[in-house]
Amino acid sequence: MAGTEITRRRLYWLGLAAMAVSAEGAPAKRAIGGAERWGIAELAFKGPQVGNPFLDVSLSADIRQNSQSITVPGFYDGDGIYRVRFSPPTEGIWHYVTKSNTAELNGREGSIHVHALSRNNHGPVRVANQFHFAYADGTPYKQIGTTSYAWTYQSDAICATTLKTLDGSPFNKIRMAVFPNGSVHFEPPYPFEGSPGHFDLERFNPIFFRRFEAYLKALQDRQIEADIILFHPYDGDKFGFDNLPTAADERYLRYVVARLSAFRNVWWSMANEYDAMKYKTEADFDRFFQIVQSADPYGRLRSIHHMHKFYDNNKPWVTHASIQSGAIAKDDERASILRDIWRKPVILDEVQYEGTCPYRWGQLSGEEMVSRFWVGTIAGAYVGHGEYIENENQAVWVGTGGKLHGTSASRIAFFRKVLEQGPKQGIDVIDKWYDRHLAGVPGEYYLHYFGKETPQSWNFVLPQEGLKDDMQFAVEILDTWNMTVTKLPDVFVLKRKDQYDFADTLGRSIPLPAKPWIALRITRV
Amino acid sequence: MAGTEITRRRLYWLGLAAMAVSAEGAPAKRAIGGAERWGIAELAFKGPQVGNPFLDVSLSADIRQNSQSITVPGFYDGDGIYRVRFSPPTEGIWHYVTKSNTAELNGREGSIHVHALSRNNHGPVRVANQFHFAYADGTPYKQIGTTSYAWTYQSDAICATTLKTLDGSPFNKIRMAVFPNGSVHFEPPYPFEGSPGHFDLERFNPIFFRRFEAYLKALQDRQIEADIILFHPYDGDKFGFDNLPTAADERYLRYVVARLSAFRNVWWSMANEYDAMKYKTEADFDRFFQIVQSADPYGRLRSIHHMHKFYDNNKPWVTHASIQSGAIAKDDERASILRDIWRKPVILDEVQYEGTCPYRWGQLSGEEMVSRFWVGTIAGAYVGHGEYIENENQAVWVGTGGKLHGTSASRIAFFRKVLEQGPKQGIDVIDKWYDRHLAGVPGEYYLHYFGKETPQSWNFVLPQEGLKDDMQFAVEILDTWNMTVTKLPDVFVLKRKDQYDFADTLGRSIPLPAKPWIALRITRV
Repeated sequence: MAGTEITRRRLYWLGLAAMAVSAEGAPAKRAIGGAERWGIAELAFKGPQVGNPFLDVSLSADIRQNSQSITVPGFYDGDGIYRVRFSPPTEGIWHYVTKSNTAELNGREGSIHVHALSRNNHGPVRVANQFHFAYADGTPYKQIGTTSYAWTYQSDAICATTLKTLDGSPFNKIRMAVFPNGSVHFEPPYPFEGSPGHFDLERFNPIFFRRFEAYLKALQDRQIEADIILFHPYDGDKFGFDNLPTAADERYLRYVVARLSAFRNVWWSMANEYDAMKYKTEADFDRFFQIVQSADPYGRLRSIHHMHKFYDNNKPWVTHASIQSGAIAKDDERASILRDIWRKPVILDEVQYEGTCPYRWGQLSGEEMVSRFWVGTIAGAYVGHGEYIENENQAVWVGTGGKLHGTSASRIAFFRKVLEQGPKQGIDVIDKWYDRHLAGVPGEYYLHYFGKETPQSWNFVLPQEGLKDDMQFAVEILDTWNMTVTKLPDVFVLKRKDQYDFADTLGRSIPLPAKPWIALRITRV
Repeated sequence: MAGTEITRRRLYWLGLAAMAVSAEGAPAKRAIGGAERWGIAELAFKGPQVGNPFLDVSLSADIRQNSQSITVPGFYDGDGIYRVRFSPPTEGIWHYVTKSNTAELNGREGSIHVHALSRNNHGPVRVANQFHFAYADGTPYKQIGTTSYAWTYQSDAICATTLKTLDGSPFNKIRMAVFPNGSVHFEPPYPFEGSPGHFDLERFNPIFFRRFEAYLKALQDRQIEADIILFHPYDGDKFGFDNLPTAADERYLRYVVARLSAFRNVWWSMANEYDAMKYKTEADFDRFFQIVQSADPYGRLRSIHHMHKFYDNNKPWVTHASIQSGAIAKDDERASILRDIWRKPVILDEVQYEGTCPYRWGQLSGEEMVSRFWVGTIAGAYVGHGEYIENENQAVWVGTGGKLHGTSASRIAFFRKVLEQGPKQGIDVIDKWYDRHLAGVPGEYYLHYFGKETPQSWNFVLPQEGLKDDMQFAVEILDTWNMTVTKLPDVFVLKRKDQYDFADTLGRSIPLPAKPWIALRITRV
C-alpha cells in the first residue's frame, strides 16, 4: 500500500532517527548517547519471532540514576524487534537493566547519556498552581485546544494539510483518537492486524503505530500537545473497537502506553463521551484509568470526556476535568462551579462547534465560539475549539482535519496573545459568586469580559482582595472580535469605596464602544 | 433557673409522655405497649450513678423482629436513669436485649408492641427517585426550608413565637444548631454541664437536651423536619465548642445520635460553613460523617454546608448536597450542574437572605428570594429561605427566630402549593444545557419560569422527549409574586416542529402579562 511506504519515509523525515533505533543483538553492556532530557532514548533489541510475541514475551527495563529508578514497559515492534522507550527526566547518565520472561531479552544492561534540553523542549505539561498547567521547566502552558478525532486516519496529503493548518493556527493542543471513527472517512492501517470484520485482537499493527507516532512527533515539533482519546463510541459497528473483550482492552491500553507515553506531548483521554459507550460501564473506565496510571512511567495528564453524565473527577487518577457543554461555556459562574467542586484544572474541551451543522451542537457563529474562550478564561478554566463546516467533500475539521473555514481561529490567536501576556501563574476567578465577571491576580492583573453586552461605560470599581489605597492601574480596552487593544491615557488611583470594593479616587468611569465582545485588561502600574 | 423549670413542664406539654418513659428497675422481662411505627419506643433503666456515667457506662440494645436486628445506642439521662430510644420501622412485636459493661444494665430483655401509624405520621424522609425526597410511607416530601441557627437558645416566650411563626409559614424544614452562636443572643442551658469558660466536656447536660428534644417534637407535630447542625464556626471563642478535643467531638456526636436519632424528623448537617471552622480539617468532617453514619441506627439524612469550598458530596456518607450560594440560585443551569455532578438531591439551603443586612449576603428583596425558589426548582433542586430583618431588639429570624417581617414567605406558600400539586416523583430538568428554563416530567407536566424577564408572549414549543403528535396540553399562567393562576381557555395540540421540538399545530403563542416573576404550568389534558 502506498500509504505504508510513505509512512516509512515520513518516519525518517520526522527525525525519529534522533532516537537510538538500531536493533542491538549482543548481550554486552552498551552505551547510548545523544538522548535529550524529556526527549526519547530508545532501546532496541532483537528477540523471538516465534509464536505470538505480543502475547508471549514480556519486556520492561528498570532505568536508574542515583536513587531514582523508573520501570519502563517495553513493546514488540514486529520483525523480531523489541523496544523500550525512555523519556529521561534529568540529564546525566542513566543505567538500564531489562527484565523479560525470555532469556534473550532478560538482564540486558547499559547506560544512557542524557544531555540538556534543545531550544523548543520545555518538557511535558503538568498541573501547576492547582487549576493551571506548566511545562516541566516551569514555562506556563496556556491551553488553547482544538479537536479532530480522525485526522490521522486520512491520506498523507490531507494529514499534511492538517499540519499546515495547525502551523497557522493558535492551537497548542489537539484531541485525537487512536481508533477510527465509523461515521467519517477513514483509511488503513488500523491499530490491530487485519481489516474490518477480520481483526486479530491478539496482534497489534506496528505500521499503524509508527505512522501515529510520526504525527505525534510532528505535533511535538509544533509545540502542540496530543490529547489521545483511547476509546470512543463512534465505532458504528464497523470495527468493534468499542466492544473489545476485557483482556484485549487491557492489552491495548498497555501497548499504547508502552509505545506512546515517552512522547512528552502525550495526554491520555480515557474516552470521548464515555457515557455513550454502550458496551462499557463507568467501572470499566475506573479500571482503564488505573491501568494507564500504573503502566505509564511518566504520569502524563489523564482525563475523560463525557456526553451527559459527568465523570467523578474527584477520583485520584484524574488530573484535570475534560468537559463537554455549551451551556457551561456561556456563563463564567457556571464554569467556575466545576473548578470549585473538583479543585483541579478544568478544560472546557467541547463548547459546541463553530459551523453550519444541521444539529444544534455545531451551529455556533465565530463570535460565539470566540466568546466561549473568554468566558471560560474568566471562570479560571481553559477552552477548546471545534469546527463543523463541510468542505467540497462533505468533510469537517472536527472529523478529519484538513483546512479551517471559520472565522474564530484568528480571534482565538488574538486571545492567545492576551493570555500569554497575562500572569504566569494563571488567571483565577476574583470575588466569585457575585457575577463580577472578573478574573486575574488580585492587586496585579484583571480581565473583565462583557460578552454580548454593549455597555457605554464601566465604573472603575474593583473588589478589595489584594488592594490598598493609592494603588495605580492602567486600563486597556480589548475588542476581542476586531482584535484591537486601546490603552487609555489615564492612570486610575484607588480609594476604598466600601467594605467590599475600591474605586477610582476621582470616581472616573471608562468609556466603552457600546459594542459586543469587549474586554478590559487592568494592570497595576 | 426559670428556664429549666419551664422546660420540664414543656416536656409533658409536648406529649413526650407518649413514650414509655418510666424507669424500670426489675431485671424481669417486660412488655412495652403503645409505641407507634416510626414513633419512639423508649426503654428506661435505673443504673449506676457513681463515677461519671457518661464516660464509664456503655449501653445499647439489640432489638429484633424476625430476621431483622437493629443495634440501638443508649445514653445516660442523669439522675441514675439510662435510656434507649427505638424508632420501630415496622408494626408488630420487637424483642430487645440490652448490652452494657455494667451488670445492672446488661441482658435486660423485653418486647415492644408497635401499632400502626397515626394520621400525621408518614415516617422519616428519605431520598427518592435519585434527586428527590419522600416520606417512608411513599408520600412525596417537597423540601421548603428555612434557617434559624439559635432559635432554641432563646427564652421560652420567643421559642413559642417561633413555633407560631412556623405554624403560619410554608416551611417544612428548619436548619438549627445544637451549639449556641457567639454572635447572637443565647441563654442557658448548654449541651455540656457548666457555663462558658467552665464547661465539663466529660458530662453532658440532660436538661439542655430535654428542652432541645421538646422542640424537635414540636417541629415534628408541625410536620417540619429538623436539619440539625452539629458543628459551626460561630463560637466566637465564647464556648470553645468549635475546638473540642478529638475524644470530646466523638463523645458529643455519639451522645447526640443516641438521644436524637429516634426522632423521625431529624436530619444531620455535619456543619455549617465547615470550611470556615479554623480548628477542624476536611478529614475531621469525613470522620464525623462516618461516626454519625455508623452510630445512627436509622440512617437519617446526612449533609454538610460550606462557605466557599464545596465538600466532595460524592462521598458515600453524604445523602444529599447542602449548598450555600446566591449565584447558583440565580440561574437554573448553574444549579443543575450540581445535580449532574453529584447525582444526588441538591438543596440550595442558603441562597442569601431576604433583608436589610449591611452585608451583601443578606440584602435580597422579597421578589428575589421567591425567584430563587423557582429557579432552584427548574434546576430540579430544592431551596431554603432565610431572613435578616432586625426587630426592635436587633434580632433577626436567621439567628434567633421570632417573627418574620419580610414579603417572601406568603409567596413561598403559593409556590409550595404549586409544588404539591405537581408530579409526585419530583420535578426534573428537561432538555438540560440548552437554557430552556423548563422542568417537570416529559410528556406530562412542565414548569417554565421567566424570572426577571418580562416577555409579552411565549411560543408554544416543547422539547421532544416524551412527546407525540396530537398530544394535548392545557396552560396556566402563574404570577408567582401576585399569587394568581390564570388558566387559558385554549387547548394546545402538538405537532412535530423539527428534530428537537414539538409545537402547537396552529402555531399559537401564549400572551403573557409583560411583568416579571411569571411562570407557565403546562399539563397534559
